[in-house]
Amino acid sequence: MPRIKMIVEYDGTNYHGFQRQANAHTVQAEIEKRIRQLTGESLTVSGASRTDTGVHARGQVIVFDTASPIPAERWSSALNGYLPVDIRVLGSEVVADDFHPAFAARQKTYYYRIWRERPGSAMQRQRALLCYEDLDEEAMIRAAAGFVGRHDFQAFCSSGATTRTSERTITRCDVERHGPLLVMYITANGFLYNMVRIIVGTLLEVGRGRIAPDMIPEIIASRDRARAGPTAPPQGLYLLQVEYGDVTQEKA
Amino acid sequence: MPRIKMIVEYDGTNYHGFQRQANAHTVQAEIEKRIRQLTGESLTVSGASRTDTGVHARGQVIVFDTASPIPAERWSSALNGYLPVDIRVLGSEVVADDFHPAFAARQKTYYYRIWRERPGSAMQRQRALLCYEDLDEEAMIRAAAGFVGRHDFQAFCSSGATTRTSERTITRCDVERHGPLLVMYITANGFLYNMVRIIVGTLLEVGRGRIAPDMIPEIIASRDRARAGPTAPPQGLYLLQVEYGDVTQEKA
Repeated sequence: MPRIKMIVEYDGTNYHGFQRQANAHTVQAEIEKRIRQLTGESLTVSGASRTDTGVHARGQVIVFDTASPIPAERWSSALNGYLPVDIRVLGSEVVADDFHPAFAARQKTYYYRIWRERPGSAMQRQRALLCYEDLDEEAMIRAAAGFVGRHDFQAFCSSGATTRTSERTITRCDVERHGPLLVMYITANGFLYNMVRIIVGTLLEVGRGRIAPDMIPEIIASRDRARAGPTAPPQGLYLLQVEYGDVTQEKA
Repeated sequence: MPRIKMIVEYDGTNYHGFQRQANAHTVQAEIEKRIRQLTGESLTVSGASRTDTGVHARGQVIVFDTASPIPAERWSSALNGYLPVDIRVLGSEVVADDFHPAFAARQKTYYYRIWRERPGSAMQRQRALLCYEDLDEEAMIRAAAGFVGRHDFQAFCSSGATTRTSERTITRCDVERHGPLLVMYITANGFLYNMVRIIVGTLLEVGRGRIAPDMIPEIIASRDRARAGPTAPPQGLYLLQVEYGDVTQEKA
């Protein structure tokens, strides 16, 4: 059976995250249900990232194996006809039978939007963190650079995570102002549970003057979750892009 | 009692329009309810524009008379503490006792957002019209100029409207591309019922090649609603700004 890979955008507001769970409305379950309506197949969809409740995606990657005669490139429009409007398939293609969207990922990019205008924004409430308190944005920009590199990010991982190692390589951590929005871009070869949201929460503490911008390396080195900032809320977070393809493997 | 004027932003998605109605969730009723919770006053709020179900506002203007000792400039933050997050007060001030936000308006500006990328957008579905069919956007830009000026806009008015005259002066009607969005800006000294959405619907027919771009003056002159395009859906429409202040009165 051919394996189909899809790029999927979704508004996470009304979902309990990506991954299927009993008695919860999730993106994975919704997509599986709509494929069942389209082709009659009860199949399992795998995703590149388990986004949490309220987290959005512009470039989630999913795969599934299908016996349907629908050509791969037609899957996008066929499934969009069945999906609710808060999930859109942006593209579809055939991939190798052993391609797994999470394991094959070379790097992923998330971004996080903070709306800085008082008194918040009715239109942005589920699309950004509304935060118009005074923040030293220059300090946040400087602090962000401290995350780049290969580090043990145990201090930036919520408990309950079960990964082999907590070493990850961040290749980009930028804070940028775009009009009323403060936007953070974080690219890494992988992320621990809640890692992006804890990094954002830590940068916010830097903005508030509670953590000095040059303390990031020390907090990373401590491997102590209590030294980092709180986990930022989900509605500002977007899975932007998952990259695959040929790479020179990093040396361990 | 002082009269307070407020600038209000709202996400119209979950409201049956601005104006209070029996058994419907409206922006006006919500604001009146929250003022009642804040000050104990059962008062009536007047707005500059009755936006329809699903239409948004970035700059709706409302007024009300209050006996509360809350200083005018503190009303914004006080009421925001009671309002749901899809309604935000952006500013408040005292105005003259006879100031009425609709009658005193010199001109209003609406804009309409059309998302042009296939296959639509999960994030934009309640913020824009999703329309990725082929459109001759250059023809739409040219046609838009035909609306500018003082005209009888009876052809661009839904039935059921009860206004003294259907003459209005459009001072701006622009179609612009901003990335994936096609945005239309329309400024006039007043609008008939559904006028913006019918103008947008007509420009879309121009984009589809069903109405020639130079036909707009003739359609206006016909005063025939059937000659204009369909009423565009509400979710792309935003009340952007209401302007007041000294103006040389137009000669009738």
